[in-house]
Amino acid sequence: MIIDCHGHYTTAPAALQEFRDAQLARLKSPALPVPAEPLISDDEIRSTIEGNQLRIARERGHDLTIFSPRASSMGHHVDDPATAVAWARVCNDLIYRVTTLFPDNFAGVAQLPQVAGQPLDASVAELERAVTELGFVGCNLNPDPAGGFWSSPPLTDEYWFPLYEKMTELDVPAMIHVSTSCNPAVHTLGAHYLNADTTTFMQLVQGRLFERFPALRFVIPHGGGAVPYHWGRYKGIATREKFPPIEENVMTNVFFDTCVYHQPGIDLLTGVISPDSILFASEMLGAVRGDNPDGGFSWDDTRRYVEAAKLADADRAKIFELNARRVYPRLDARLKAQGR
Amino acid sequence: MIIDCHGHYTTAPAALQEFRDAQLARLKSPALPVPAEPLISDDEIRSTIEGNQLRIARERGHDLTIFSPRASSMGHHVDDPATAVAWARVCNDLIYRVTTLFPDNFAGVAQLPQVAGQPLDASVAELERAVTELGFVGCNLNPDPAGGFWSSPPLTDEYWFPLYEKMTELDVPAMIHVSTSCNPAVHTLGAHYLNADTTTFMQLVQGRLFERFPALRFVIPHGGGAVPYHWGRYKGIATREKFPPIEENVMTNVFFDTCVYHQPGIDLLTGVISPDSILFASEMLGAVRGDNPDGGFSWDDTRRYVEAAKLADADRAKIFELNARRVYPRLDARLKAQGR
Repeated sequence: MIIDCHGHYTTAPAALQEFRDAQLARLKSPALPVPAEPLISDDEIRSTIEGNQLRIARERGHDLTIFSPRASSMGHHVDDPATAVAWARVCNDLIYRVTTLFPDNFAGVAQLPQVAGQPLDASVAELERAVTELGFVGCNLNPDPAGGFWSSPPLTDEYWFPLYEKMTELDVPAMIHVSTSCNPAVHTLGAHYLNADTTTFMQLVQGRLFERFPALRFVIPHGGGAVPYHWGRYKGIATREKFPPIEENVMTNVFFDTCVYHQPGIDLLTGVISPDSILFASEMLGAVRGDNPDGGFSWDDTRRYVEAAKLADADRAKIFELNARRVYPRLDARLKAQGR
Repeated sequence: MIIDCHGHYTTAPAALQEFRDAQLARLKSPALPVPAEPLISDDEIRSTIEGNQLRIARERGHDLTIFSPRASSMGHHVDDPATAVAWARVCNDLIYRVTTLFPDNFAGVAQLPQVAGQPLDASVAELERAVTELGFVGCNLNPDPAGGFWSSPPLTDEYWFPLYEKMTELDVPAMIHVSTSCNPAVHTLGAHYLNADTTTFMQLVQGRLFERFPALRFVIPHGGGAVPYHWGRYKGIATREKFPPIEENVMTNVFFDTCVYHQPGIDLLTGVISPDSILFASEMLGAVRGDNPDGGFSWDDTRRYVEAAKLADADRAKIFELNARRVYPRLDARLKAQGR
């Protein structure tokens, strides 16, 4: 089977954004009422999913998508904890409904109500709710909730430990995923996302986080940012700066997805990184839509690239399915219960 | 011949750093005297070059290095324009002496006295001095003088235009190169450098800078950061966001170097990016030193990778020599005057 570990509900019904707009308006004008939860019918959810992500997944032969709220809308830079909590709950509840309407096709991953500079208690609580009450199998963790200003400590800092303790207890991984860039110098999709992947990886190279949290697992999306392309650089820097070997210190607990939208990129990723450390993903419908004019197929049709990569069948099966079942054990348990 | 377009004087005599330390001490204690220019003999310069960059260049068969002050020491985050001017002059004067002692082996590239948030007048003046008085052939331009906080406007903003006008007038290119990261979340060599390459490229994709400055030329180092690995992503984003085609809007004036320290990375770079847009470089002695234990040769021996890449001989000659002569016409003129 084929598991796409990286999908966002980028096609959610308009009522969701109207709710968000009302939240933000109330932050400017506190006399406004607390916005009511968005009214979205099952049919609206069905049509926005069936006409988009599910249609394309079926066309491409993806069996299941690990699905989370739109990443660029998480908006962790908005400096109000109560707003963040309400927004994460509404977004996650909508994902839950998707997973309930299409239980064979989607598994939920939680948005956390992070706020730059604030403690993570609300994020820990929302993660627990999402996993134990909504059946989610992981979360998205934003290493730069300030949105392009990198004011938070590195992921190896104890600031993050309460969340890691809860992730360990619940046995769920995090995809490391930033939200929109508030920095006019840094484009969200073309710079901030990739920079975050690169920056986070290097934070992990510098630290010894997984000695402290041996069961913690991170998925670094977008093919690991710049990392596989510069694999020799990382190996060389780790040696020169006397960091532990990356394979032993980082790659035991870190996985890259396949959101790299051309064949040479996937060839490099699968040639350089162990097939035990790669999870299939497309981020469909995400940053990059539309067809490659040279190829006549969608840029984000990453299955095509992975099929064409020089991989043993057993390694391709790890990338398409087996690694995801290992990294997301709650998904594996559910699939087994479904007889899959 | 082989031109290495990216070398820094990372092995400068200790008196240079002592001068810098005295500068920084005086910023804390203004009663201290203005530090005198560092006393460095020709023999000291000879030995630090002959034992390091020149020895290795000869071993590898590099003929000439385009050479600039140590990038991580530029320190544009230090918020004092007079200090920045004095520091750039001292650093550039030392590079000038290297080029005078070894005129066949080194050509100078200028450090600019940028200060985050300050006008570029002093940088324009130092560029003019370096080119017209010291015979330099280009400059390093820091797109994030704040050092990891990205507080400056994108390179397409008119803030930068005075420098572009002078670069155009003098017909010299800039290598886009940040200095040290002051942000504890962002490692200088393993994240900030690559992020800057990626961020800058996307700024250029978003804008139309080269319509305004058709003769302006930028070298984006470290193999273009994450860009070639994610070439499909950039092409797809440009189409979706209705930016002009990257090949016509950016790649006419932008070049990537070959500071990518393993064979798969160079294979991707040379497979994806036109050989007209790649300049040979090693950044020796730079971020990554020492030998690849799997290969028994230096990580930064990029000539080896370029020789092994699947390239037509004519294209390899462009990468090793001809593109550099085109991008740095003042270097080309000097080489011709030397009969090379």
